[in-house]
Amino acid sequence: MKKIIVINGPNLNLLGSREKEIYGDKTLKEIESECRSYFLKKKIRVEFIQSNSESKIIDTIHKAREHDGLIINAGAFTHTSIAIHDALKILKIPKIEVHISNIYSREEFRKKSFISPVVNGIIAGFGTNVYHIAIDSLRYY
Amino acid sequence: MKKIIVINGPNLNLLGSREKEIYGDKTLKEIESECRSYFLKKKIRVEFIQSNSESKIIDTIHKAREHDGLIINAGAFTHTSIAIHDALKILKIPKIEVHISNIYSREEFRKKSFISPVVNGIIAGFGTNVYHIAIDSLRYY
Amino acid sequence: MKKIIVINGPNLNLLGSREKEIYGDKTLKEIESECRSYFLKKKIRVEFIQSNSESKIIDTIHKAREHDGLIINAGAFTHTSIAIHDALKILKIPKIEVHISNIYSREEFRKKSFISPVVNGIIAGFGTNVYHIAIDSLRYY
Amino acid sequence: MKKIIVINGPNLNLLGSREKEIYGDKTLKEIESECRSYFLKKKIRVEFIQSNSESKIIDTIHKAREHDGLIINAGAFTHTSIAIHDALKILKIPKIEVHISNIYSREEFRKKSFISPVVNGIIAGFGTNVYHIAIDSLRYY
Amino acid sequence: MKKIIVINGPNLNLLGSREKEIYGDKTLKEIESECRSYFLKKKIRVEFIQSNSESKIIDTIHKAREHDGLIINAGAFTHTSIAIHDALKILKIPKIEVHISNIYSREEFRKKSFISPVVNGIIAGFGTNVYHIAIDSLRYY
Amino acid sequence: MKKIIVINGPNLNLLGSREKEIYGDKTLKEIESECRSYFLKKKIRVEFIQSNSESKIIDTIHKAREHDGLIINAGAFTHTSIAIHDALKILKIPKIEVHISNIYSREEFRKKSFISPVVNGIIAGFGTNVYHIAIDSLRYY
Amino acid sequence: MKKIIVINGPNLNLLGSREKEIYGDKTLKEIESECRSYFLKKKIRVEFIQSNSESKIIDTIHKAREHDGLIINAGAFTHTSIAIHDALKILKIPKIEVHISNIYSREEFRKKSFISPVVNGIIAGFGTNVYHIAIDSLRYY
Amino acid sequence: MKKIIVINGPNLNLLGSREKEIYGDKTLKEIESECRSYFLKKKIRVEFIQSNSESKIIDTIHKAREHDGLIINAGAFTHTSIAIHDALKILKIPKIEVHISNIYSREEFRKKSFISPVVNGIIAGFGTNVYHIAIDSLRYY
Amino acid sequence: MKKIIVINGPNLNLLGSREKEIYGDKTLKEIESECRSYFLKKKIRVEFIQSNSESKIIDTIHKAREHDGLIINAGAFTHTSIAIHDALKILKIPKIEVHISNIYSREEFRKKSFISPVVNGIIAGFGTNVYHIAIDSLRYY
Amino acid sequence: MKKIIVINGPNLNLLGSREKEIYGDKTLKEIESECRSYFLKKKIRVEFIQSNSESKIIDTIHKAREHDGLIINAGAFTHTSIAIHDALKILKIPKIEVHISNIYSREEFRKKSFISPVVNGIIAGFGTNVYHIAIDSLRYY
Amino acid sequence: MKKIIVINGPNLNLLGSREKEIYGDKTLKEIESECRSYFLKKKIRVEFIQSNSESKIIDTIHKAREHDGLIINAGAFTHTSIAIHDALKILKIPKIEVHISNIYSREEFRKKSFISPVVNGIIAGFGTNVYHIAIDSLRYY
Amino acid sequence: MKKIIVINGPNLNLLGSREKEIYGDKTLKEIESECRSYFLKKKIRVEFIQSNSESKIIDTIHKAREHDGLIINAGAFTHTSIAIHDALKILKIPKIEVHISNIYSREEFRKKSFISPVVNGIIAGFGTNVYHIAIDSLRYY
Repeated sequence: MKKIIVINGPNLNLLGSREKEIYGDKTLKEIESECRSYFLKKKIRVEFIQSNSESKIIDTIHKAREHDGLIINAGAFTHTSIAIHDALKILKIPKIEVHISNIYSREEFRKKSFISPVVNGIIAGFGTNVYHIAIDSLRYY
Repeated sequence: MKKIIVINGPNLNLLGSREKEIYGDKTLKEIESECRSYFLKKKIRVEFIQSNSESKIIDTIHKAREHDGLIINAGAFTHTSIAIHDALKILKIPKIEVHISNIYSREEFRKKSFISPVVNGIIAGFGTNVYHIAIDSLRYY
Repeated sequence: MKKIIVINGPNLNLLGSREKEIYGDKTLKEIESECRSYFLKKKIRVEFIQSNSESKIIDTIHKAREHDGLIINAGAFTHTSIAIHDALKILKIPKIEVHISNIYSREEFRKKSFISPVVNGIIAGFGTNVYHIAIDSLRYY
Repeated sequence: MKKIIVINGPNLNLLGSREKEIYGDKTLKEIESECRSYFLKKKIRVEFIQSNSESKIIDTIHKAREHDGLIINAGAFTHTSIAIHDALKILKIPKIEVHISNIYSREEFRKKSFISPVVNGIIAGFGTNVYHIAIDSLRYY
Repeated sequence: MKKIIVINGPNLNLLGSREKEIYGDKTLKEIESECRSYFLKKKIRVEFIQSNSESKIIDTIHKAREHDGLIINAGAFTHTSIAIHDALKILKIPKIEVHISNIYSREEFRKKSFISPVVNGIIAGFGTNVYHIAIDSLRYY
Repeated sequence: MKKIIVINGPNLNLLGSREKEIYGDKTLKEIESECRSYFLKKKIRVEFIQSNSESKIIDTIHKAREHDGLIINAGAFTHTSIAIHDALKILKIPKIEVHISNIYSREEFRKKSFISPVVNGIIAGFGTNVYHIAIDSLRYY
Repeated sequence: MKKIIVINGPNLNLLGSREKEIYGDKTLKEIESECRSYFLKKKIRVEFIQSNSESKIIDTIHKAREHDGLIINAGAFTHTSIAIHDALKILKIPKIEVHISNIYSREEFRKKSFISPVVNGIIAGFGTNVYHIAIDSLRYY
Repeated sequence: MKKIIVINGPNLNLLGSREKEIYGDKTLKEIESECRSYFLKKKIRVEFIQSNSESKIIDTIHKAREHDGLIINAGAFTHTSIAIHDALKILKIPKIEVHISNIYSREEFRKKSFISPVVNGIIAGFGTNVYHIAIDSLRYY
Repeated sequence: MKKIIVINGPNLNLLGSREKEIYGDKTLKEIESECRSYFLKKKIRVEFIQSNSESKIIDTIHKAREHDGLIINAGAFTHTSIAIHDALKILKIPKIEVHISNIYSREEFRKKSFISPVVNGIIAGFGTNVYHIAIDSLRYY
Repeated sequence: MKKIIVINGPNLNLLGSREKEIYGDKTLKEIESECRSYFLKKKIRVEFIQSNSESKIIDTIHKAREHDGLIINAGAFTHTSIAIHDALKILKIPKIEVHISNIYSREEFRKKSFISPVVNGIIAGFGTNVYHIAIDSLRYY
Repeated sequence: MKKIIVINGPNLNLLGSREKEIYGDKTLKEIESECRSYFLKKKIRVEFIQSNSESKIIDTIHKAREHDGLIINAGAFTHTSIAIHDALKILKIPKIEVHISNIYSREEFRKKSFISPVVNGIIAGFGTNVYHIAIDSLRYY
Repeated sequence: MKKIIVINGPNLNLLGSREKEIYGDKTLKEIESECRSYFLKKKIRVEFIQSNSESKIIDTIHKAREHDGLIINAGAFTHTSIAIHDALKILKIPKIEVHISNIYSREEFRKKSFISPVVNGIIAGFGTNVYHIAIDSLRYY
């Protein structure tokens, strides 16, 4: 049984209730639930965490050492957190950055990612399906 | 039967024979062949084209109107071609940008993409598996 | 009875005891107390919170959905937090940004605000009176 | 009896007849009239001037030495006029910068203000109510 | 009978007597005279104004509401005046920006135009013929 | 009989079938046809070429030496091609740059033109009428 | 008898009454008076004008054609007025830029001068003596 | 007995187990222990704290008012936290910034420090010995 | 017998007939002919190709694998083509960049070369002699 | 008797023999000689030194403490030497920066002066007369 | 016996007599003397040199090959000298950069150091004690 | 007999003993010796000088007026010395800039050359053979 951790950054706890035309109407709970049951059949145990706190996210990355893969949607921290950059750099398991929307077609300040240089792969713009695709794609590492 | 076109830009004809530690040892031919047979079973006809010519790529994008999806690895044109940007902007079918390597951890000039703002999704950094993941992910649109 | 939340960011817990020539000698406690009693007569219930933690501030903004207005003095987070920017953007009640000092006549890095583009109004430079003015001005929305 | 001068820059003579969804439907005349009668009761004599001419505005600022406060909505000159900056810098009475709209959520070139560093307070984004709020807030100096 | 106003900015009163190799040897008077008689036959009444004053130009733009078209050669104000930008933006008749010389092959600071984003068309580099071409081209709106 | 060549760059072959609200519903064929018959009466032979290929455009410019005038709508190459800049610089016949839309009111990267410094005149923003105006205006050189 | 015009820009009418520690306590009137009588003996007629209006300054420069020299302290217009730059460029008599204070040791935005590239000489930082030095130095041209 | 607080920012809890060739193989625990016993003999009580949380670090700085000196290795917060900058600025005891590695020979984004302008001294690049050197050097203030 | 390929980019087909004061009056044909006969005696077979097409140049670089050296004068592509940069980077034979003129004393945009970082040597500014010098200098690798 | 030192930087030893149309045909020797005899009558002893060495210039500035004034034409060091900036900053006698030509109408890199912020006055663009004017103007301090 | 060389750059010969509130009142002679006698007891021979000449400093660095450590306070050369950067880079003994003041809280141009990337450690802001701390800290290499 | 001077800047005296994998193992002495004897046969007298001093290099350039050509490897001064730029600009004999390594594939700050705009030719990246190639190539001027 493989273990995958999926980390979600600030404001993602509001998924499903805000700007539905962009982010869809599924809650993070529902996405997690779907991913869990789907991948359980493939012998992959998926665990979601969400936090608005940079330090909780760093702590979670530190503890991810025992996992077989990490998916991160760092939300707004993507563009500002060198501390998360450093935490990810230290971690030596497969890591994938995901974004629900296409961040490259939005504000200028959303184009710079401190996460991208320290992950293995990047998936953006498939709505909330990015989680499914990312977990599935971890098998390529 | 769905029809998907996969467009490959400059220097990708050398895949499998250059810098294998980065790009892997599969030729574009082999990747195409694998994708074709795999997706044929799923009722998806996949066609690869490769060209070092910006104008050929634009022509191909223009003709893609009848397809059900487009995957593009524009290679170096990613960072310089507004003409391809414009061609993609006009095209109203699902479009995915792919990169074999993680372009965000390379030279500064590879961080800017003229393709990203006009595609639906972006997948980077899974080696030559990006083609497979991208074609598979087209079903989310 | 209307409900207004007044959010104060990092270092504002030291108000009244630091750099008094700039920030005045009232503590946040005192300011809150004055505002509370003044506005209670006008059927407005005012609540102050202060936190040095970005995540606590985000949580508070999320919970402010039931309020009739939000005042935010994000302190140093004004210039660095895209996460707070995002939280405010989602919130659909009247929002006012305040600053005790005139931030535009200080260091270069204090001139950029990630808060300004997502609030309705901005009030800066009236000393600790900005809280009173801001709460009072909420009636214009 | 206190004397307050309210200076309005270029294009503000069209208030009430242009882009009403942004600037409201009151003319400058009407706003002045309302402010005048309201503050007269509070022993404050309010005088509005409007000019599309930078030099007239500078002249008015020079003559404001005898007033008890100055409110300025410099319009487009906010972003370009160092001469008005200098005139305000010399003037030693309370000065407040106002903007009807939230200039920080508009074009990039509207984010820089040459006025902000030389005023005491800034109020933006409350529609044409900024005049009332500003005059009222002068009592804090 | 259609009415067209042609606005000329600073230093254009010297046309015909300065740098003739660039600007030709016709005075603004002569150009106006030629345009007037030519277009009168086509039922178009052309009126030229010239001013070195930004505020006069803004006033003229405000009054142009009753005209059927506006041509503007804002001279040096092209590159510095946000106030003229705003005045033009408000005006809802066809507007054309003209330049006698090719401003794009001159100093760096002449390449930025605050006029271009708020006009319908731009004509530059045909010597003093730009006035004739512009008036004639107004019929396309 | 004068000979004029009109060069059209990438994606302009789709004129009339894409984004009609911006570019109008005439095809390049139709525009050429209209220009041809109109100017034939004025003893001007007009020839249109369109290519998505930078090298074909350069070749055409090289061959234009025998013509009496050149009109170029370089499309996206306007903003990226120093090679076309060089080819035009060498060519010693009257040259006019045209743009169907007002490129100065669009994306930032469309504001820089490598064509402008090496042409005699520039006409932008009159819809597909720019071709007619440009050919007609060649007589001023 | 030689004729020299000395042009003074915005806010210089306040000389002698503002920031005396920087600008000294002489009024412009007094400076003019001293210069007049001193240079009259040397057969030089000196005339001072001051205006807060950019257009008046441009008009004055246009009329200076008959003079033997021009001194300009453009005040804040130094840093913003391309129109004055253009007016000076056209004028073919000796021209000197002066500044009372050392503008290079002040705010960043005061370091750029649009006047400097189009004058013959520059004198800054000698207090109000710059006028005397500049008039005297005109004899070197 | 003097009291010194040593604050350590994000990811420094992993010292001794990560990138040992850069950061050495001592844990923060061991470094603290060595410093404690060494300086105890010199009548200096040393206390280490480490946190991945910006708000905890700010809280600790606020409470440091009673100490005789503060050492801070803010890790990645060095480059992003204006809030810590503000907290340190308020604190009026001797403050030293330390870095284990030579941050100036690493990525561009690590060259900017928001800590440096508000500390008394800076020590970088001596491996984990920086703590010892810094505590020892506090006696110079 | 050694084999050397000399690649010439856009507009170089016009050598000898354009701007002779800069580029000399020899055609590319003549230069090739001289180089061929000179180096044939030294057992070096020299072959020139010229193309205005980026893709043809990339194709030629790909095929150069069997050669003993490559000389490239990429013309305007020097400053814009990342695709040629990539093609050269892959090629593992000695490579020399040449320029007929001193590109560093020309326009700003000609100072950046995407070719320089991926060649072994650079020779610029000796007129059309750069070809001879470059071929001759290949023996140092 | 007052003592004035006039310091000349790199390449100024060639005055009178190079680019005479810009710098005139007087040698530094001749200029010194003229200044010496002229000012001797006014009880001012003038001494010129010239050096191509930054350190000699710094040494000379250090020794100038006993003088009554310093004139410096730092040549190219104007734009690059922070060390001379520092030396001048320490020196507490009247200091004037001179330039023979108008440096603001030349290359971009000549527009920045490290000397200007640390001198009292600046005189540029009067040919070799700047020395005479500067020495004469020292009496204003 | 270990040998340490301490190199001091431009203007440091004035230590003790200039800006004493920043740099203290000890002369370089006195500092050297104190360091010498203190470290002699620890079997370390310390030698100070000071020069205003970049070339002398480079020569001294070249000769330092036989020493056991180098301390450099390059003064203003810190921010401008790539030549010293190169000399230090070649030298393979422990190297420490020191600054008496906190250079990061001063002018913008003092924030960039060409020395920092090529030394082992950096110590700044302890007044003239930096020499003592640096020599003492060399033992950690 | 022709006379050629070869000027070498800072740190080049260490050639042959430092970073041999980049710079080769020949000393400057040996290179000079080889060049001397080789070119003597061709009636060219070659003289090498090396200095770490900017002023010595300037002096040497001044004296080179009597030579028939100048080769300069300015080392680190390439990127910082406007004074050498000026000295070379004045000198009217053939001048060639050389670099042993390919400076364009190194640090960002090595990409800017103040030498390039004022020499006739540039040769870089052939190891220490650049001297030989450069001297030999002087015959093309």
